[in-house]
Amino acid sequence: MTRSYTFPTPCDFHVHLREGNMLDLVAPMTAREFGRALIMPNTAKPILTGLDATRYRAEILDVVEEADIHDFDPLMTIKLTKETTPDTILGAGEFVIAAKLYPEGVTTNSDDGVKSVRDLYPVFEEMQRQDMVLCIHGEEPGVFVMDREEAFLNRLGMIATSFPKLRIVLEHVTTAAGVQKVHDLGDNVVATITAHHLFLTLDDVLGSRLHPHHFCMPVAKRPHDRAALLGVALAGDRQFFLGTDSAPHTKDAKQCADGCAGVFTAPVAMPLLLDLFDSQNRLAELSAFTSSNGNRFYGGRPMRKLATYRQEAWKVPSEYPLDGSPMNYPACLVPFRAGATLAWKRKE
Amino acid sequence: MTRSYTFPTPCDFHVHLREGNMLDLVAPMTAREFGRALIMPNTAKPILTGLDATRYRAEILDVVEEADIHDFDPLMTIKLTKETTPDTILGAGEFVIAAKLYPEGVTTNSDDGVKSVRDLYPVFEEMQRQDMVLCIHGEEPGVFVMDREEAFLNRLGMIATSFPKLRIVLEHVTTAAGVQKVHDLGDNVVATITAHHLFLTLDDVLGSRLHPHHFCMPVAKRPHDRAALLGVALAGDRQFFLGTDSAPHTKDAKQCADGCAGVFTAPVAMPLLLDLFDSQNRLAELSAFTSSNGNRFYGGRPMRKLATYRQEAWKVPSEYPLDGSPMNYPACLVPFRAGATLAWKRKE
Repeated sequence: MTRSYTFPTPCDFHVHLREGNMLDLVAPMTAREFGRALIMPNTAKPILTGLDATRYRAEILDVVEEADIHDFDPLMTIKLTKETTPDTILGAGEFVIAAKLYPEGVTTNSDDGVKSVRDLYPVFEEMQRQDMVLCIHGEEPGVFVMDREEAFLNRLGMIATSFPKLRIVLEHVTTAAGVQKVHDLGDNVVATITAHHLFLTLDDVLGSRLHPHHFCMPVAKRPHDRAALLGVALAGDRQFFLGTDSAPHTKDAKQCADGCAGVFTAPVAMPLLLDLFDSQNRLAELSAFTSSNGNRFYGGRPMRKLATYRQEAWKVPSEYPLDGSPMNYPACLVPFRAGATLAWKRKE
Repeated sequence: MTRSYTFPTPCDFHVHLREGNMLDLVAPMTAREFGRALIMPNTAKPILTGLDATRYRAEILDVVEEADIHDFDPLMTIKLTKETTPDTILGAGEFVIAAKLYPEGVTTNSDDGVKSVRDLYPVFEEMQRQDMVLCIHGEEPGVFVMDREEAFLNRLGMIATSFPKLRIVLEHVTTAAGVQKVHDLGDNVVATITAHHLFLTLDDVLGSRLHPHHFCMPVAKRPHDRAALLGVALAGDRQFFLGTDSAPHTKDAKQCADGCAGVFTAPVAMPLLLDLFDSQNRLAELSAFTSSNGNRFYGGRPMRKLATYRQEAWKVPSEYPLDGSPMNYPACLVPFRAGATLAWKRKE
């Protein structure tokens, strides 16, 4: 008998959908697995205003509807830069529910990130007033890579203390220290956890061979850090929920002398999580991690529609070709767990 | 006026020359920069006996002489495996001056490495009797990648204490803890330091982008670890000397989904070291690091021939083509600092 599991349609509270032919390829993948997703604003031409976000949202919905998916709910964000003002927040409009802070230079397309976080305090003030969520890539620039997240936690604490009603997300938490800090700061501070950080440590990136498709920012940390992430995710801890940070880059941009950071998990994150929660006898906590905790925090409607995953072996493609790339030099995306056989699959 | 610096011809006390067309390409590069080199035995078909080493030495000399270099002195090693016996050591012959221990599975071609180091104690006993040097890849298998070297140091201490007259090299030391342990263990224990570990930390491997040509085992560690290596190298500390661990792999084997560990430094190590020691006003200590410390430890003749390097800008090739690879899919090697302009060059 095939086992199956039905639960509220999962949501991804941190995803990169990109633009152009990349958007065409990856947006339907996300929309097939997730009923709702928080769309990151660090596109090549960044999403800086409510108008940008409204246009980008329409573009995403066009692509998804073209793929015959009609119930996807993209939640929009804008990127904070040194040009952002309280008026940007006031005029952000109905679709923008969060603004994203990238400390300068720590991740993809963050060269226009923010150097002095304090300069943004008037913006945070307005966000607190408007009840807009602050999403933070929590790594301190200039610090040794393994210490960058922990070094940022004091700054996180200062922001949370200065704006006690501002809702804050420490995105893609990777350390035990980060988990502890979120607990310490209380209910207005939460963290997303990616799927891949539940499976990887630095050993899987460069412990014997080099695995570019396991390389992302923040980098996977130590075994005890991974254990801390698993602890709160599998417990359904209400301060933690899924944000895959699925971050597609072409194979050539990953497997080269100067490779991009990012793990592309959109098509595999949920099957992997089903397997993980099932193997730990925690399927009952899955929907807390993949929908209710995030929706409660963001104030979204609970997911009424259900999703069913079945235990059915399938092989992850070794790559996904990108339309519109040159015939003689086709570009493609390599997903996390390329070529592996996964145990769970969403029922159409 | 062009500055130049003349000093005893440098030696490389840890280098991988490989076999076949790779050997043809890299052996002359090493022989042009180094008058003497300790040749690692972990070829695809490993060097396990004196006979293997004698044959491999002849092959190396053939290649080097073919390149019109007639004064290269390859020092040979054998690889310790679970099949190695005291008789292997007794019969190793005149060219083998060291035997190399690879704890299982931690580096390239070490799958036949040694699981229980204690099983080799009779072999170490014979090595001590014959005054053969023990070279160790000092990483403890199964430990988190950043902790592997430090976790091995107790074992190093046990070997050194059990065989007080055995001369031991902790190869390619990468940590401050390793440097300290070598100091603590006294004159019969030394360490080699690579050129690249004097320049890199983990930040240069994956601190923002992924740099496969900076990836090696042991991986580059923290800033304070690099500082400890620089401290002893620039001081000419007699327990430390150059072993480049130049480890060529084809570009395809490096820039792929499952990349090989190893940094190919043969053509650039000495120019980089000239620049480093010069910039720190330590040129006077260079020959301690690059020849006298190693020769004193190994009991080799001092280098009588001199080498001159001139301050002359040159651009490191982006790659070196390998002869004999398919015309439509040429293989090549990417050197450390590919495409960079270096300040020093050896005078022909």
